[in-house]
Amino acid sequence: MKTYLDCIPCFMTQALRAGRSAGLEDKQIKTLLDEVGAMIRDLPMENTPPETGAVIYQKIREITGIDDPFKKIKEKNTREALDLYPYLKEEVRNAKDPLLTAIRLAIAGNVIDFGVNRTFDLKKDIKQILKQDFSIFDYAAFRSRLETAKNIYFLGDNAGEAVFDRILIEEIRKPVIFVVRGIPLINDVTYKDAIMAGLDKVAEIVSSGSTAPGNVPALCDPGFMKRLRRADMIISKGQGNYEGLSEEPLPVFFLLKVKCQVIARDLGVTEDSIILKQQKNH
Amino acid sequence: MKTYLDCIPCFMTQALRAGRSAGLEDKQIKTLLDEVGAMIRDLPMENTPPETGAVIYQKIREITGIDDPFKKIKEKNTREALDLYPYLKEEVRNAKDPLLTAIRLAIAGNVIDFGVNRTFDLKKDIKQILKQDFSIFDYAAFRSRLETAKNIYFLGDNAGEAVFDRILIEEIRKPVIFVVRGIPLINDVTYKDAIMAGLDKVAEIVSSGSTAPGNVPALCDPGFMKRLRRADMIISKGQGNYEGLSEEPLPVFFLLKVKCQVIARDLGVTEDSIILKQQKNH
Repeated sequence: MKTYLDCIPCFMTQALRAGRSAGLEDKQIKTLLDEVGAMIRDLPMENTPPETGAVIYQKIREITGIDDPFKKIKEKNTREALDLYPYLKEEVRNAKDPLLTAIRLAIAGNVIDFGVNRTFDLKKDIKQILKQDFSIFDYAAFRSRLETAKNIYFLGDNAGEAVFDRILIEEIRKPVIFVVRGIPLINDVTYKDAIMAGLDKVAEIVSSGSTAPGNVPALCDPGFMKRLRRADMIISKGQGNYEGLSEEPLPVFFLLKVKCQVIARDLGVTEDSIILKQQKNH
Repeated sequence: MKTYLDCIPCFMTQALRAGRSAGLEDKQIKTLLDEVGAMIRDLPMENTPPETGAVIYQKIREITGIDDPFKKIKEKNTREALDLYPYLKEEVRNAKDPLLTAIRLAIAGNVIDFGVNRTFDLKKDIKQILKQDFSIFDYAAFRSRLETAKNIYFLGDNAGEAVFDRILIEEIRKPVIFVVRGIPLINDVTYKDAIMAGLDKVAEIVSSGSTAPGNVPALCDPGFMKRLRRADMIISKGQGNYEGLSEEPLPVFFLLKVKCQVIARDLGVTEDSIILKQQKNH
């Protein structure tokens, strides 16, 4: 997905929030906003939003000198999600269609997100998403692809959310490669966070090498991209991965909750929709 | 009021909205955002937000070559407000305390605002504000000052809203000077708009010479400021005038609806509050 004009003020808001969450002082945040503001002029609108995100979080690392400012928040989110794990498993066990319930839960986990300007109430969101209608629902295609797929990649999004992804992977009952970011970016899931969430028990964990808060091919490790292009099924979580891959000719199924107006418009749905969408150009 | 960090992303959002409302093409809006972004570095945080607004709207004028891009919107708002005039007068006539109802209506008119990131439903907002409790309510001081005041200035805010201001001025039953901006800024009230709203029938209309969307002393005509400093009562409408004058030693009563988190925090109230506040340092 390209950058829309509405993304530009949002980059500033994200920088402000990320700076605050990273514990920056007001003066440092002002410096961050100065730099992000000055960057807008050279921003290629053809770029995907996570590519700009990459620059913002690079600047935060430079200013703070801290590699993983969201470490504690991610650990807290993962602990909270692990506490819910037995309850989530029970929901799947009691479901008429356990796979679909696991998909819904994976989307519910996607509300754990500090990159978007929102607050969330996890338990409330889970209950709501368990009964919410999908706005795009390519479930038949998903099921049928899953039956034949031999090389399945699962693109993780946020830490904490990864616990919910684990539940979906457990329902897939096939070997899955769980993909994490190459470096810490906001609360995005890294190798360490995935281990803490127990993903190593259900999948092979691989880093995309991405330096952006979303798997943008140009910012992923070329070797990883080569392997990904041989996948016969890719399950992509969240907005960042959608923004990075929405125009790539890959066998992707996007699972996400729509958290901003720009992505809602891009998908032709309303904000707060839940989506299970098969990539069109593949 | 000084500029807060949260104002910075909001400047970008305002620029985007103002650019769109002014009918700019996407490329022109991008140029506007580039320039506002680049400006952040040199932004004195001690400045009041309307001073930054002044630069944004100056840039819009430069890019469009149009002096008053909100002309049609303002005329439409004024017409709609004039249509409501008989209904509003009836509300005042039937009120137990007509002055207080007129104050409430003047605040209700303050929802007609394109400078803030909000949409509004005028009739619904009027009904709501007529019964809403004030979060700051210096009404006794307002009444008692009004009894003795001989030199009353009324600082207008938006076009359309001016029709509601007229109703309050009619209840004041004393000579009043109604102050408009020096140049068109967003949908702020100018001389022409005030005439269309019928303010000339109830007050003397004077321009502050302000080039900012709020009467910031440094950006007002020095002659006007000299006269304003001799006023014994100033009624100030809206956020922009509050931001410009909240630290000035003047006999001001601020009437406003709180439309953003920053001003809510500055006033120590919650968003959506309605306020009748006497200036403390005077």
